[in-house]
Amino acid sequence: MAYTKQDALDYHRKGRPGKIQVTPTKPLTTQHHLTLAYSPGVAEACWEIDREPLSVYELTAKGNLVAVVSNGTAILGLGDLGPEASKPVMEGKGVLFKRFADIDVFDIEIAAKTADEIVAVCKALEPTFGGINLEDIAAPICFEVEERLKAEMDIPVFHDDQHGTAIISGAALMNACEITGKKISDLKVVVTGAGASAIACAKFYVLLGVKRENIVMFDSKGVIWDGRDGVNKYKAEFATKRDVRTMEEALVGADVVLGLSVAGAVHPEWIKGMAENPLIFAMANPDPEIKPEDALAVRPDAIVGTGRSDYPNQINNVLGFPFIFRGALDVYARQINEEMKMAAAKALAQLAHEPVPESVLRAYGLESLEFGRDYLIPKPLDPRVLLWVAPAIADAAMKSGVARREIDITQYREMLIARQGQGRAVRNTIINHAKMGRKIRVVYPEGQNPKIVSAAYQVAQEGIAEPILLGFPDVIHKLIADLGLDFHPTIITPLLDEVHHESFTQTYYELRKRKGVNLNLARNLIRSRTHFG
Amino acid sequence: MAYTKQDALDYHRKGRPGKIQVTPTKPLTTQHHLTLAYSPGVAEACWEIDREPLSVYELTAKGNLVAVVSNGTAILGLGDLGPEASKPVMEGKGVLFKRFADIDVFDIEIAAKTADEIVAVCKALEPTFGGINLEDIAAPICFEVEERLKAEMDIPVFHDDQHGTAIISGAALMNACEITGKKISDLKVVVTGAGASAIACAKFYVLLGVKRENIVMFDSKGVIWDGRDGVNKYKAEFATKRDVRTMEEALVGADVVLGLSVAGAVHPEWIKGMAENPLIFAMANPDPEIKPEDALAVRPDAIVGTGRSDYPNQINNVLGFPFIFRGALDVYARQINEEMKMAAAKALAQLAHEPVPESVLRAYGLESLEFGRDYLIPKPLDPRVLLWVAPAIADAAMKSGVARREIDITQYREMLIARQGQGRAVRNTIINHAKMGRKIRVVYPEGQNPKIVSAAYQVAQEGIAEPILLGFPDVIHKLIADLGLDFHPTIITPLLDEVHHESFTQTYYELRKRKGVNLNLARNLIRSRTHFG
Repeated sequence: MAYTKQDALDYHRKGRPGKIQVTPTKPLTTQHHLTLAYSPGVAEACWEIDREPLSVYELTAKGNLVAVVSNGTAILGLGDLGPEASKPVMEGKGVLFKRFADIDVFDIEIAAKTADEIVAVCKALEPTFGGINLEDIAAPICFEVEERLKAEMDIPVFHDDQHGTAIISGAALMNACEITGKKISDLKVVVTGAGASAIACAKFYVLLGVKRENIVMFDSKGVIWDGRDGVNKYKAEFATKRDVRTMEEALVGADVVLGLSVAGAVHPEWIKGMAENPLIFAMANPDPEIKPEDALAVRPDAIVGTGRSDYPNQINNVLGFPFIFRGALDVYARQINEEMKMAAAKALAQLAHEPVPESVLRAYGLESLEFGRDYLIPKPLDPRVLLWVAPAIADAAMKSGVARREIDITQYREMLIARQGQGRAVRNTIINHAKMGRKIRVVYPEGQNPKIVSAAYQVAQEGIAEPILLGFPDVIHKLIADLGLDFHPTIITPLLDEVHHESFTQTYYELRKRKGVNLNLARNLIRSRTHFG
Repeated sequence: MAYTKQDALDYHRKGRPGKIQVTPTKPLTTQHHLTLAYSPGVAEACWEIDREPLSVYELTAKGNLVAVVSNGTAILGLGDLGPEASKPVMEGKGVLFKRFADIDVFDIEIAAKTADEIVAVCKALEPTFGGINLEDIAAPICFEVEERLKAEMDIPVFHDDQHGTAIISGAALMNACEITGKKISDLKVVVTGAGASAIACAKFYVLLGVKRENIVMFDSKGVIWDGRDGVNKYKAEFATKRDVRTMEEALVGADVVLGLSVAGAVHPEWIKGMAENPLIFAMANPDPEIKPEDALAVRPDAIVGTGRSDYPNQINNVLGFPFIFRGALDVYARQINEEMKMAAAKALAQLAHEPVPESVLRAYGLESLEFGRDYLIPKPLDPRVLLWVAPAIADAAMKSGVARREIDITQYREMLIARQGQGRAVRNTIINHAKMGRKIRVVYPEGQNPKIVSAAYQVAQEGIAEPILLGFPDVIHKLIADLGLDFHPTIITPLLDEVHHESFTQTYYELRKRKGVNLNLARNLIRSRTHFG
């Protein structure tokens, strides 16, 4: 994707500065509405929450609202630029939450350096949000912050930099073992990088069955060995007792190398000694620790994953956080626990076994995609990920006792499909954009059916398409009023007698004749109602 | 406005729970867009803010983003229900900010009781927001919180419960003096209520010229007199040295009674002894300290204001906060200082001298409205308030040295008029709703003019109306792409030759003939392009 600095700045600056706005969701077109939205009618909602605290999830936006909290100390790969400079990233994260899982995000950039300060602010924010996504907070403070918040708060707290990569690469690891016939408990793993995400991955792999003593971790100063000075307690958990000093030594006989460091950190020569069918996750962005083509040149039996969309096995966090929070929010979860993370990884691993839909193939310009070495995990734009991961999370939350609402998983999946009218349309828009060049107009022939009206309303709300309803305006307006919607669709009334019909047909024919529509065809097209509009 | 508990709960619960959502403002329909919105393109925006900190106002939503912060200790008239139960009110406040001044609000309900805790959270939030509106925080803590935040923060902090009423009733006070020929410095004022807003009003009136020794204040325990025990330092500022013990005594010869307490707090008998042309602000909600008709029955020379929309002189905070923040944000102000508050009060007072537009009269079902006893301050739905107050605030900010951006006030007023395309349309929608019953479709005949396209985009963005552009789709789509807008209007292409024209005319005639359009009229209507659509 080529872009210039100017493109990026213009994108942020043009029109309304930034990337988000807050919009009212309820009708506000009469004095009556204002009376309900604010004083005095709003008092009823306040009293109800006072009476039944969980009703805050039904009467306010809390249950769909996540705080993306950062202090800007580890922004993307840019380092510590401070909270203001992290705001574009956090707004962007919010946009991804919205587009992939219809979750609303307040991006919260805080002036807070110590763990105590960050913890205090997040705890104070608990009443506002359904969940907290910590983002781009530097290690090792991020570990303490997350641990304390998880212990002290009653809403899910999730540090995506840690657990996102862990869950998604964990799914890939499970599938790679299946393909190569290796046992997870036998894997020998070398980790390059010892930041938040490297440590979280190592911990998650242990949870999946990797033996701690089979992991060797390197930071910028070299191998982390038992007895090395100045190693923080989080790294120390993975200090090796083995007598290895270089990565080349460590890689001899290793099954997995996990790269979460910098471009070029793994030299092609070094992987020559790895075990059969080595698994190479090189996730430095934008340039991996070792290029897939270089790895495969020396080890044609390797299975390679990166963070990039232009290679197979893209390990991208967007496969996780939107759906993990979706499932957690929908059962009013108190936390995102290990059971839920495991369920997410397993759901991703399983989904990769399913046949891949045509739309996904088209999105990536591929002819086919089948479970195997080049397809260990689903693609980030696959619309099925929501339907697999969110229910898995919700189910695990209920089974592990952190849900405050019981839901039926089958019904829930159906609700997600309905919600996804939006998400899927967005992906389809992305997919079809080059071809379409403009927004789709959708004609709803059953425009007088309440369900159809609701569906059209959702589509319009999300700005996915412009709905056009067929029917009588009076009937449809009454329906909309009964449903309590603030919705003003284009309505087209099919003509009922031949005079009108003929006249419309004539017009249609005149307009389209250069496009090869003849008068008879026009007549028939007009008659079949779906061609109106 | 009649409503039931169920109406209010349904309004909050139906569809998407709560009243707000966060939506992306930038196009997100291609992979290229995702690259700019998030990694890696977003890094350019981060670096730019790191290089030039003020650019955060141009590259993120900060410059249009206000935090409405509450701990829920003094929710409306409901008392201390805690932060969760305050969320519906704070979302509602956000909705008012948006509708009246196009300002985005994150409602932030915090679990924080002490001044230290509230101050710590607000200070940490500084990087995220362009301003902080404190709301429904109980006195006396609210005073300390605001004072400290104003001293320690570099963005505007404004406690609306204090200053909103002060500014707006201050404007009414100035105009009442003008009408009755009284000098502000001679006014004798009785205040009933000693909460945040009563104390702030008293302080603001002193700023306007009222002598502190001419103020007598009552709290729920009676008169606040010099020497009374257990009076906090904020009330103590207004402890009287006069030998009065009852409100009836205090009102003898008084010019003003300011009610910010409870219904019925001022007995009609008591106002009999007030000076000529007494000014009675009875602002308890929903029922005032004294009913206007009861006051006028005993004192026909009284000038009466309340918080209600069904009496003259409605003193409603919505006349202040949206426009005060609008002006402050638009010059990147460091604070909202006394000069700015004074400028807002004066602008409101001045505007009341201007002839009232027809649309405002209609909104309130009035025949006429003229500066005088029954019209001391503008009406809350008057669209001119934005254009008077925001520039006055911006100008005062620049002159008092708290602005970080210099703007030309004349140009600024024009920008506000453009921005108001939205606000005004909203008010007109409210006004015309009964008559219209549905959203207005707006036809833009100059659909190929970039300015018109931008205006139509704004109108569509705000959901005010459905824009229909006349012109050629290719031309308009290219314009939209050049402008970088995510905009998909209905486009109608006027027909250029008589064949098409005649056919459309015929259709139009057939459709409308029952409504009294004859064929010739139809022909002419079709020809005048604004009737398309």
